[in-house]
Amino acid sequence: MTDLPSNTLSSEITKFEPTNENQDDGWFNYPVHVYPHHTDYSGVVWHGTYLTWMEAARVECLRSVGMSFEELIGAGVDLPVAEMSLRYHRSARMGDDVLVMTKLVPDKVRLNWEYQIRTETDLCVTAVVTLVAVDFEKRKLLRSLPSSLEGAIAKLTGT
Amino acid sequence: MTDLPSNTLSSEITKFEPTNENQDDGWFNYPVHVYPHHTDYSGVVWHGTYLTWMEAARVECLRSVGMSFEELIGAGVDLPVAEMSLRYHRSARMGDDVLVMTKLVPDKVRLNWEYQIRTETDLCVTAVVTLVAVDFEKRKLLRSLPSSLEGAIAKLTGT
Amino acid sequence: MTDLPSNTLSSEITKFEPTNENQDDGWFNYPVHVYPHHTDYSGVVWHGTYLTWMEAARVECLRSVGMSFEELIGAGVDLPVAEMSLRYHRSARMGDDVLVMTKLVPDKVRLNWEYQIRTETDLCVTAVVTLVAVDFEKRKLLRSLPSSLEGAIAKLTGT
Amino acid sequence: MTDLPSNTLSSEITKFEPTNENQDDGWFNYPVHVYPHHTDYSGVVWHGTYLTWMEAARVECLRSVGMSFEELIGAGVDLPVAEMSLRYHRSARMGDDVLVMTKLVPDKVRLNWEYQIRTETDLCVTAVVTLVAVDFEKRKLLRSLPSSLEGAIAKLTGT
Repeated sequence: MTDLPSNTLSSEITKFEPTNENQDDGWFNYPVHVYPHHTDYSGVVWHGTYLTWMEAARVECLRSVGMSFEELIGAGVDLPVAEMSLRYHRSARMGDDVLVMTKLVPDKVRLNWEYQIRTETDLCVTAVVTLVAVDFEKRKLLRSLPSSLEGAIAKLTGT
Repeated sequence: MTDLPSNTLSSEITKFEPTNENQDDGWFNYPVHVYPHHTDYSGVVWHGTYLTWMEAARVECLRSVGMSFEELIGAGVDLPVAEMSLRYHRSARMGDDVLVMTKLVPDKVRLNWEYQIRTETDLCVTAVVTLVAVDFEKRKLLRSLPSSLEGAIAKLTGT
Repeated sequence: MTDLPSNTLSSEITKFEPTNENQDDGWFNYPVHVYPHHTDYSGVVWHGTYLTWMEAARVECLRSVGMSFEELIGAGVDLPVAEMSLRYHRSARMGDDVLVMTKLVPDKVRLNWEYQIRTETDLCVTAVVTLVAVDFEKRKLLRSLPSSLEGAIAKLTGT
Repeated sequence: MTDLPSNTLSSEITKFEPTNENQDDGWFNYPVHVYPHHTDYSGVVWHGTYLTWMEAARVECLRSVGMSFEELIGAGVDLPVAEMSLRYHRSARMGDDVLVMTKLVPDKVRLNWEYQIRTETDLCVTAVVTLVAVDFEKRKLLRSLPSSLEGAIAKLTGT
């Protein structure tokens, strides 16, 4: 399981910028506003809700470099989650403006997405989500990434 | 839009029986226990959560007469929701034992599912959900129901 | 149950404008992009997902005139759903840009929200959602709306 | 982050028993049937859906030894998720009967729940979820567990 980047958090955290964009340092920012259906009985965000935001952030991050998820699927490739680790530091509350920050760190045929989820004042969640590429119909691992996806990864990682 | 059976509720409500079974009067009972992810900031069940329970209840009701949803789809037929009306009377709370009662009232090629959702003491929701049969790939309305589905409907409605 | 505005749809539909704003004609536009977690096995948006978008749209519509939902709750007032009717015309698909259009039609102490949910080419869902104001702790109906909410309603309806 | 019990999986996996009960070896079994709302466009279970099942399984496991979650909250104690790690091996499909197996391994004031989620033929997910006890209102960590919870833990772990 990929290690969480916990030690380097304080120095890496960028300032709160609630706009959907790529940062120079490789972090992509996806803003969310907390609505009633995100919360549970405790008045804070239910722990599973963050997964929907993290999914949206990585779809938008790929879209920001021209790679649409539905085209990938249309081309017979799916990107299921293979592993996921999350640490919950503080809870976001109803009405909060939240920033879901994500950064792609590819490792051969695995796509590791690092996450920091923050309100204006607090770091809420740090996480790593690992995707793998599979054949959409057969659900078999692909040995190499499609070239369109490799192109998008190169743009995101500046390689 | 199908009328809600509000006037006839009091006489029709069967006693609370938290078991998954068909009643003689045509009501199918699907029991649910309220978990944290069902609730919102107000401590009661979020209004959209009831839709997941109503879907589960009709899948189980069809299964109780031998019709599995995945086989229907495997045969190229889908049953999307065409219309839905709900009245929220009282909210179920975390930890409540809830009974989702449903009854199928078919109307030619439309499947109307009536619902009463109750805790042991309160009527929470009354609803009607209308499904139509479509070709799974083309999403076109079917002019007649598949015979396997007609057989299941006949069993459920005693016709 | 409030009637759906089905007859008047064609003339009232405004053009597709994927920006979060109030229109002159009283319709508020809330844009959504369809992500994987919005869909089901059929590849289209699961019927219950629209409820999360409709909730977000009305929270944002109130926010656009200075009324935040969390302040309302902080003041001891909740706005639960009392009734809801939906018609599903066509399904939005993964990757679609969707516009959730809503318009507030208050009726004494009831807030009726009319909805049209559209992709760039299709009308997907029409709906009416009715909210009532209750005491947050006691869950009892309020006989009159809080003045801050009345002010917001007046701004939205131009009265 | 707690290690996943991956090495010991093969020897520890109990046979598929779709009943809600405690096993002698400390595994609690919570059965689930896969419904449409659990799936996504790929026809298999959406990766976040497993979190709802894991939550239900641990609530039921505590309930099986007399500890209800709502009573705990009524007593001013909440059990939020502090950490979570998941490995996705194979996907459950619509209509599958799934068994969510969980085992509590307490560590001072942390509750580690190990999970194996299986269909009749496949191991789908292994996971560890760590809960901590906090004051419900102040959201501060408790230095010791409430005695009612300690009693439930002792029953589950046979200590």
